[in-house]
Parts: sequence; structure tokens; C-alpha cells
Amino acid sequence: MAMTVKICMVGAGRVGKNHSDAIMGYVPGAQITAMVDPADAVLQATADEYGIEARFNSLEQALDRADFDAVVITTPTFTHRELALQAAAAGKHVFLEKPMAMNLEECDAIIEGTRKAGVHLQLGFMRRFEPEFAAAAERIAAGEIGDPMMVKSNTHGPGLPPAWARDLRTSNGMLAEVNSHDWDCVRWLMGSDLNRVYTEIADFKGKENNVDTPHFYDNVLVNIRFESGGIGIISGICPCGYGYDARTEIVGTKGIMQIGELKGQDILVCTNRDQGLVIPIQRRWQERFKQGYIGEFHHFVECIQKDQTPKVGGAEGRMAVAGVLAGTRSFLEERPVYMKEILEGK
Amino acid sequence: MAMTVKICMVGAGRVGKNHSDAIMGYVPGAQITAMVDPADAVLQATADEYGIEARFNSLEQALDRADFDAVVITTPTFTHRELALQAAAAGKHVFLEKPMAMNLEECDAIIEGTRKAGVHLQLGFMRRFEPEFAAAAERIAAGEIGDPMMVKSNTHGPGLPPAWARDLRTSNGMLAEVNSHDWDCVRWLMGSDLNRVYTEIADFKGKENNVDTPHFYDNVLVNIRFESGGIGIISGICPCGYGYDARTEIVGTKGIMQIGELKGQDILVCTNRDQGLVIPIQRRWQERFKQGYIGEFHHFVECIQKDQTPKVGGAEGRMAVAGVLAGTRSFLEERPVYMKEILEGK
Amino acid sequence: MAMTVKICMVGAGRVGKNHSDAIMGYVPGAQITAMVDPADAVLQATADEYGIEARFNSLEQALDRADFDAVVITTPTFTHRELALQAAAAGKHVFLEKPMAMNLEECDAIIEGTRKAGVHLQLGFMRRFEPEFAAAAERIAAGEIGDPMMVKSNTHGPGLPPAWARDLRTSNGMLAEVNSHDWDCVRWLMGSDLNRVYTEIADFKGKENNVDTPHFYDNVLVNIRFESGGIGIISGICPCGYGYDARTEIVGTKGIMQIGELKGQDILVCTNRDQGLVIPIQRRWQERFKQGYIGEFHHFVECIQKDQTPKVGGAEGRMAVAGVLAGTRSFLEERPVYMKEILEGK
Amino acid sequence: MAMTVKICMVGAGRVGKNHSDAIMGYVPGAQITAMVDPADAVLQATADEYGIEARFNSLEQALDRADFDAVVITTPTFTHRELALQAAAAGKHVFLEKPMAMNLEECDAIIEGTRKAGVHLQLGFMRRFEPEFAAAAERIAAGEIGDPMMVKSNTHGPGLPPAWARDLRTSNGMLAEVNSHDWDCVRWLMGSDLNRVYTEIADFKGKENNVDTPHFYDNVLVNIRFESGGIGIISGICPCGYGYDARTEIVGTKGIMQIGELKGQDILVCTNRDQGLVIPIQRRWQERFKQGYIGEFHHFVECIQKDQTPKVGGAEGRMAVAGVLAGTRSFLEERPVYMKEILEGK
Repeated sequence: MAMTVKICMVGAGRVGKNHSDAIMGYVPGAQITAMVDPADAVLQATADEYGIEARFNSLEQALDRADFDAVVITTPTFTHRELALQAAAAGKHVFLEKPMAMNLEECDAIIEGTRKAGVHLQLGFMRRFEPEFAAAAERIAAGEIGDPMMVKSNTHGPGLPPAWARDLRTSNGMLAEVNSHDWDCVRWLMGSDLNRVYTEIADFKGKENNVDTPHFYDNVLVNIRFESGGIGIISGICPCGYGYDARTEIVGTKGIMQIGELKGQDILVCTNRDQGLVIPIQRRWQERFKQGYIGEFHHFVECIQKDQTPKVGGAEGRMAVAGVLAGTRSFLEERPVYMKEILEGK
Repeated sequence: MAMTVKICMVGAGRVGKNHSDAIMGYVPGAQITAMVDPADAVLQATADEYGIEARFNSLEQALDRADFDAVVITTPTFTHRELALQAAAAGKHVFLEKPMAMNLEECDAIIEGTRKAGVHLQLGFMRRFEPEFAAAAERIAAGEIGDPMMVKSNTHGPGLPPAWARDLRTSNGMLAEVNSHDWDCVRWLMGSDLNRVYTEIADFKGKENNVDTPHFYDNVLVNIRFESGGIGIISGICPCGYGYDARTEIVGTKGIMQIGELKGQDILVCTNRDQGLVIPIQRRWQERFKQGYIGEFHHFVECIQKDQTPKVGGAEGRMAVAGVLAGTRSFLEERPVYMKEILEGK
Repeated sequence: MAMTVKICMVGAGRVGKNHSDAIMGYVPGAQITAMVDPADAVLQATADEYGIEARFNSLEQALDRADFDAVVITTPTFTHRELALQAAAAGKHVFLEKPMAMNLEECDAIIEGTRKAGVHLQLGFMRRFEPEFAAAAERIAAGEIGDPMMVKSNTHGPGLPPAWARDLRTSNGMLAEVNSHDWDCVRWLMGSDLNRVYTEIADFKGKENNVDTPHFYDNVLVNIRFESGGIGIISGICPCGYGYDARTEIVGTKGIMQIGELKGQDILVCTNRDQGLVIPIQRRWQERFKQGYIGEFHHFVECIQKDQTPKVGGAEGRMAVAGVLAGTRSFLEERPVYMKEILEGK
Repeated sequence: MAMTVKICMVGAGRVGKNHSDAIMGYVPGAQITAMVDPADAVLQATADEYGIEARFNSLEQALDRADFDAVVITTPTFTHRELALQAAAAGKHVFLEKPMAMNLEECDAIIEGTRKAGVHLQLGFMRRFEPEFAAAAERIAAGEIGDPMMVKSNTHGPGLPPAWARDLRTSNGMLAEVNSHDWDCVRWLMGSDLNRVYTEIADFKGKENNVDTPHFYDNVLVNIRFESGGIGIISGICPCGYGYDARTEIVGTKGIMQIGELKGQDILVCTNRDQGLVIPIQRRWQERFKQGYIGEFHHFVECIQKDQTPKVGGAEGRMAVAGVLAGTRSFLEERPVYMKEILEGK
């Protein structure tokens, strides 16, 4: 039997809990042997929940004192570069949550740092491991709908993101925190890089939520032209309230494909004909992409066990960050922004 | 242009209103020129609503004094034989609501009476004119799902039927009043007559509705063996409360076909992720089969204008009545009942 | 009973046939008493099909020699102004297909001409009469999903439009011919005028279809900012091949609403588990909006009979044309275009 | 951390492979340490696939020479009694596939044998652990649809069962092999034992499959009356060809609930408007109930680790066998059969 991969979970918050749940519940080839979080109460609660004994307030301490093969980094974006480089320098494989980093310089540093250390780097784009998205991508690549002409990808999340995640100084806002998966998906499914983007934003709930962050928005629509000549749209709403809504539609020269739906469990009830049919919606990202989270860790573990390069890594993370930066500049400057302005530093 | 067919609507209640709505709103080739109902208040209200001036308390009076080519009979089952024979004797074409009659003797009298008078007789099996059921039947007949093996047909209605419609002395109960369409549909879609039936019934809401009719039931499941060797189920619930639910599923040697769904309008709303998606249900039979009602009257009018035999007439009505009688005998005698016991009067 | 409205159908092509079908088949209050088309073969064939005896090659002739109360204009856009003004001048009510006209000057002339003549003017925005769109609009207006934040409206049509309909000299291209309904719907459903638009286009099938029209495109995505602060997208593809696809999704501060779906008839079949479930798609606009077409003519007839102003007229048609012009200027100039640039002639 | 439960997989065929996949892929708390199958080629292939080194041709040998805490028995029905008793006698916990046994005497022996040995007995009714069925059952029990009145449960499987599974001498045929889950589900969801059953069967594909088993049938409909007064239907088809179809619908005094659907992955494609929408169907039971299989083993492992009684055990298995026997007697004797005839040995 293959060796059990020992993991240090860095970050014990919502994402850290979700990933601990996936690994400890459904990934026999891995074990979380250490957990890190600077917020001690959060650390103790999550580590208790998953029965993890080795607990630290910094990755540095964990690297010193605990035994593990890889880190799973789930902390805020602005910490990614430093943590990834620390882990790589210590020879640990790196699983890094999206968005990869704050800017292209940080992305490049992480790519270079893991490459030099000879460790694997996988990005947390779990949609690539969700059975439906993965099957859809294969079918598109096989030509089932012809040449992709138009893509629409949306991620609408129920609740207000934490303050750091909507402040352009500590994150790149909703386009990064909520729509990172869309940036990656549209490239992946269209089979083309982006050429230019134009963004419209709206702010409907900032006031009622006492948000005073400059440039706050809770609705965004990005119009994209691809290098292939195709076009597309990314849609983000957060908080949308009504559920966790992540769907993609793509039209090719031969036909249309829809991936995902609003519906959660296949349970339909009607107890009032004036109200109508009631069906659970996808409520939280944890449920919506549960199979994708399990799948990405099965893949990460297998890559380590068999010394294979993960299917999705630094290059994909970097392009998603570039899209976010172009989309953000577009609404700040109220004009279409070319990707080369970002990628070539113009 | 073809002549306008003048119609006398016999019965101004729920069904009479529904059919007046279909004819006056959507059938340019016909006009309701007279209306009959013994209940004067109902007659005046419905005739006012549709702008019909000639109003009578009996068909006899209408035949005497008004000008029309055809009758549409929508009164209770126990009146069908007499009204149909009266109209036929006066040379009027007959559109007769289901169930055709109380028993086979009455059916035979109606078939014979209209035949002798040389008038057309169409039964109110509107599912045969509903675009979906009609298209499905054609596709099955063309062999798309192979030889039909198993059919499931259900009609669940929201409200308690009127007293006459659940009393075995004035009607044949729910199997007749609610499930007549299913008896017709399963024969039509399976392409086979019935061989024997076995019925289970349940009474859940009789008490709370103060029903004291003997043998009252509000749930019924009929297990059917067809002459073809196929099998099937008819399901009835009334009152079911939750909507008007009429769906059919049929499995053949090559595959499955489902016809119809619970959903009403294509409007999906979610405003609460703990509740989920909300979609209108089919609420009433008037909405569920609106296209079928319009279609059956287009057909009736065309048959009169072109002197063609309606697609669905006395023979179909009679076989549905036979099924009802066999199903009823089965639950009364707690045993499977062969159709020949009914058809051959054994 | 109300008087029968006599109609002259102007244009005997695809739209003229569709509207004749709706009126002659389902609108008892109206009758087509004359038909006009300069292409005589088309005129004779369609007039034969619907049994219309009075046939003319110009509206002028029809006005001279035939008896009617109203015209239904279904000819190409560049003819709308002249025909509408002719009819109005003769005291005929005007039902005018979308797009209303080529530009705002023509729209203003039509509005003024019908106003002065004291005749009714209804625009062919049948979605407003489609039961689902109409119910959805009412529910939104009643606050069910809160304040509208984001709308997505798409119309994708199966086949290549005729040459005049994709040439910017005789039409305003796909944004006008295919997406006129979307321009009207987004205003209607968002309850707000548009502030600015940004358009991306793509051309995937022009070459294989030997299209040499300048600025031809077969895919378009318009990003919209509304006066209300909301945002939205209009999506057009033609030819898309796969069916007739018209759906709208709108998210408000309280939740999401989806209107319409890809599915055509409710018939689901599976005869091969490797292929999967097969369900009819909406194939043609004639089927997709059949109820809407019938409904808009019921409304037009009722407005004439009762001398009421149609719910949707010149003002709505004019704003849709303004949107088309802004969207077109945007892709020509590769920049966001403000509606006031169009409306104020800047 | 809890101890790892060591499992001996008894049976290396289709079910043995499926369960090995669930345990080795998704149940970190368990490990398959031995595998048993009398067919050596099958044993070697499956053991190779899951990396299991200890391989035996009989459970006796495995008990002698290998180290494990529990057995998972996936062999044909007629072997269940002996294997379960052997394992229990050796102090091993028992996970037993459905159907529990050939008759009530065997069920009683297994229940008694495991009780005396003080080991846990869990039946392979994975629907109870499928998130949708489990959530539905809770909602029904909480009164959401009122008192259950009518249930419909179907299991249609794609391929012809192996010869032993359709021969009434080595199995109880399709009612047992395919519909065991339905017998358990209808009791569970209706919250009531069965009172009597009536069965109709059909044989459409026996001849083309060269089946010469007496009493062979490939379609079955069982009409059920429950002790509660409710009624229901169980539907079985095998081979149905079109996919793996397991759905349940239940109507209570307050409304309707549907559980499960035909659709497999949420990927909709249309590339031909004459064909329509194409959506994957549930193809195989392994995919349809993947979450249920993982869930039942998570539960089995947890019960062993925490010494808790499994939620579904011998009592449930026994009642399902009783239903099968009553249903079979009904079609053999062509009459309704009361459960007490089976349970009281009349």
C-alpha cells in the first residue's frame, strides 16, 4: 500500500474546517497531523473537532516541531506568498487556496520558490475535480459542442465576505475571493486565454451592512473577449442571500452545454398549491462542491505518492489573478482593459 | 370560409364555464348560441360572463326555441344518457363529457342513438388533444420505446368532489369522475385492451370532510394486466390538496417515456435558502389541460364542418366505463376482476 | 357581442404567417380580411393557407379597395415608418412588429403620426403577453425578489437571418432583429431605464455562410448599467443551431427569479443509457411564444373594441431602438456608450 | 484517534468490488485486510485492484489465518445464513447484503446467531444512508407531508440478473434481488408495516434472453395495503435497458414528496434541435447510490468503534424478506396475500 501523506493544515477557519472534513472523512491516503492558526480559540476548536493533537500558532513552529509531508494553506490571500515560500523552503509540498496571491509578482515568487525546492504546488481550483465540471471539460475538449463561442460563468454566494476579503488593500475584492473559480473555469472550458475585459459593478447592500470600504461592490458583470475570438461573461453577487449559486453555460458552434444547477438535494415537496413546488437549493459552497473538495485532495495525495505534477498549479493560479487585476482596473477606469496591460505590466 | 358551428352548452357549472372559456376565447369556428342549466342562478351568471343571450332551464326548451348545430353536455353522469339521446333525436351533434355514462347499457344506448340519428359523438377525453400526450402517443405508436411493458398513470385532484360525484348511486365515484382519463390513456398508450384489474383503496379524509357516503375512498391504486401481457397502474387521490397532478410514465422494451410534470409555469424563485427553490405547480385541471380543451373543440368543430368522425367517441367512452366498473367491483369484492366479467355481463 | 375587428395583414412571410395562424386559429374577435405582400408567390400561398380572399401587392391598394379596421405590419424594419404612417393616415389602427424602426427619428414620426390620426399603436413585444413573463413581471413589481440588482436576458435563434436583417444599412443587425425583445424586457423587468452599455461581438459562422456584410457578428454580449444602479447582460447568438432559446434571470436584493427554460414539450425519453435522457427543446420562436402571440392579438383586439390604449406602444418601441443604437455604437467604437449620447443626439 | 476497523470482504464480484471501492476510497476508519471468493480468478483480480494481500477461497480459511474485526458478506442469497453464522461464531461483526436470506427461518437464525455472539449485524440497505432518502425520511417523520397515504417506489435495473438471481430455488427472483430496497423503503417511509399485497408480473424479454427459469418475470407491480390504512405500489423492471432508475414518491394528507430523479450528472447538452436536450441518466446502481454506500460503511465502522447498534439490522432485513415471499405467493396464486399468512406461517 502507498504511504499515508501527512498534512499540516494551515488556517483553521471556514476553509480549514471544510478541507479537514474532506481529508479526515474521505481521503484514506492522507492524515492531518498538525494544524496552524494564529487565532488560538479557532485553532483549538477545529483541532478538537478533527482530533488533531499537534497545534501551533505559526507555520514556523509547526515546521520546527511537527512531522508532515505537505501543507494545505487556507489563510487570507495576503499571507499566501510568505507561507508558501516557508513551506517550500522546508521541502513540504504545497496545496494553496485561491486566489493564489495579491499580484503577479507574488505569484511568480511562489512558482519560483516551489520549483526551486522541488515540491509540488497545487491550486485550490476544486471545480476541476468536481465530476460534472471535469466530465464537461472533457466533452468540450472532445469537440462535442464544436468550437466554444460564448461562455457564462457565475458564482453568487450567500453571505457578506469578511472585511479583509472585500478591501482592495488586503484582497482583490469579490472578483478575487468569490469569482476566482470563474476566471479559471472560463479559460479552461473555452480553451483560450483572455484578450480584454470590461466590468460593470453595483453596490446594493453596502449601506445596510455598514460597509465603508472604498470601491465596495456586491454585484459584478465582466464582459470578456478571448484570444480565440470567443466572448464571455463572469457574474458575481455576494451577498446574494438566496444560496450558493455556481453554474456555467457554454455555447459552441455545434450546440449548448449547461453545467450545474440551482437545485440541491433531489427532494421535491408541495404542500400548498398556492405556493407550489419546493426543492432545496445549493445552500453553501461546502455542500455544492463537496465531491470537488474530496477529489482535489485525492489528486494531491496521489501526486505526492506517485511524484506526479498536479493538474492545476501555479500557471493557472497566476492567470486567474491576472484576470482579477484586469477586471478591477476596468471598473476603476471605466474602460475595457487588455490582458497585456496586466501581463506585460503596462 | 367554413360555416360557424353554433353550440348549445348544456350545464353552466365548472365544466360548462371551462368549455365556454375555451370555445369563446380560442375557437373562431364556433359560437355558443344557447346555454342550459336547471339551476337558474348558475345559468344567468355563466351566460352573462360569456355574453350568451339564449338561456334555458332544460335542453328540451332549448331544442324548441334556439338555433344550434351541436350540444356540449357537461352535466352529472347520471343525466348523460337522456340528454345525449334528446339532442341526437333532434339532429344535433353531441360532445359528451366523461364519464360517458353510469353503465354499459347507457353507453350502448348513446352509441346507438347517435348512430341512428346520423350525428357525430365526441367524448371529452381532452388528453388525446393535449399536444404532449398526442405527440407521445404518436411516438410510442412509431415504436420509439419498443413494445409497451408497463404504464403508470395518475390523476390527483385538489378538492373534494361534489356529493353526487362520490356516491356510487349517482356516479361511479373517484375511479370514474377523476380517473376516467387514466382509463382511456392507458388503453390508448399501451395499445391494448385490459384483461383484469385489482384495486386497493384508502379513506384518509372522509371523516374530516363529514362524508357519510358508503364505500367512500380518497386514495386508489389499480393494478392492471393488459391483453398484450403488459401491466400497469392507475393512481387516484382526491382531495390531494397540493395541486392538479396528471402524469403518465410508460416503459417499453426499448426504453422509458414520461409525459407531463408537476411544474406549472416556468418561473423559479428563491428568496430563502433554508426554504429553497419555489416553482408554481399545476393548480387546476382548467390550467393543466387548457391546450387540450381548446384542441378538442377545434377538432369537434372541424369534424362537424367537414363531416368527419371524431377521433375519440363512444367506443372509447364505453371501455373507460367498463374499466371503472371492474375496478370498483375489485375493491368491493377484494379480488382481481376480469374485464370479461364486466363486458360479458358475468 | 363585441364587433369583429377586421385586419389587413401586411407582409405574408414568416411573421405574417405566424400572426395569421394566431389570429385565424385562436382569436374569435378578429378576422383577417385582406393580405398584402409585394412578393406575389408568397402572398398567394399564405393567403390560400388562411383562406383570405382580398390580396394586394401594396398597402396603398388595400387601403383603396378593401375593408378593414387595423393593419398588422410584419415587413422588414426599413419599411415600417412609411407603412405605419400610411395606415394611420387612413384611420387604421396599427400593430407594428419589432424592431419599431431604423432610428429615433422614424420612431418619433410613427408615434406622432398615429397620435394625430387618433389610432391605436401596439408594438409586437409578445413577451409582455406570454403568461410566464407577464406573471413574473407582476411578481417582481410586487416586490417578491426585492429591488432588482442584476438581469440576464438571452435570445439565441437557430438559423441565419435573411440578408437584409444582418446588414446595418437595412436593419440594425442581430441586436435589433433578434434581441429587440431583450432590450424591452430588461427595462420592463428591472423597472429602470438604461444608463450605459458596453458590447462585445464575435463572428464564428460568417465565413461558412458566405456572409460579406460589414460588421457582421453572430454572437453578442451587452453589459448594461441601469439608471437604478443595477446591472445586466443581453446575450444574442444567431445562428445558434441548437434551438430557440429565450430565458431571463433576475436577481434582486431578496432573491433570484428565472423565467423560461430550454425545454419544449414535457416528454422525456431514454432508450440508451449511454446517451441519457432526451427532452424536446424549444425549436422555433413560433412555438416558444405561441401563447404570447395569441395574447398580444387578444389584447390588440380588445383595445380596439373598447377603445383602450395598448399596454405596449411607441414609447417602448423607441427605447428598444435606442438601446440597439447604443449597443451597436459600443462595438464599433470599442467603448462604453451612454444612452444619453443616443437619446440626446450627442 | 479511533481504531481502524479491519474488514474481510466476502465475495469479490460486482458487489464486492463496489464495496471495496467505497471502503478503500472513502472510509479512512476502515481497511480491507482480507478477501474471500471461491472463484479464484475473480478473487485475484479484485484483490489486485484494491491491493489486498490476504486472499482466500473460503471464509473458513480466512477466519483461520487472517486478522480482521468484521465481515462484509456480498455473496448470493442462499449462502448468507451459513456465512453470517460462521463469522458471528468467530466473534466478527457482520455487514450483510440484501436480501437477508431465502426465508424467515434463515433470517431468524442469523438474528439469533449474531445476538448470541454479541456482534453487530447491519443490513445493506444503503438507501437509508443516502443523504436524500435519509433527509426525506426525517422530514416525513417530522410531519411535513402529514400522514402518509400513498407511496410509489420503483427500482428498474439495466441488465439481466445472473441465473441464480432469477431462479426461485436459489433466490426469490427480481422481487428480492432488485426490489429488496423498495420493500424496506416503503415500510420506513410510510411508518407502517404491510397488511396485504397483490402482484402482477410480465415477461417480455425472457425469450430473447433464452431464460428457461420457471415463473421468470422481468416486470412486476405490487399493490400494497398497509396496516396504517395507506396504500402503495412497488415497481420492478429488470432488464429495463435504459439505466438504473430508483425513485420514490409519497403523498400524505398535507402534500406530496418526490425523492430521487432519473437524471445523473447535471450536464445538459443540445447539439441538434430535432433531437432536443440530452442529459445523462443514472446508469448504474454503483453511481446512483455511491453516497449511500460510503455512508453505510461510515456508519458500520462507527458502530463498531463506539459499540453502537446499527440503525438498520436483522429486523428490517426480515420484514423485507417477508414482503418478497408474500408478493411472490400472490402472483403464483393470483390473489391478494396477507402478510400474516407469511409471518404466522399460515
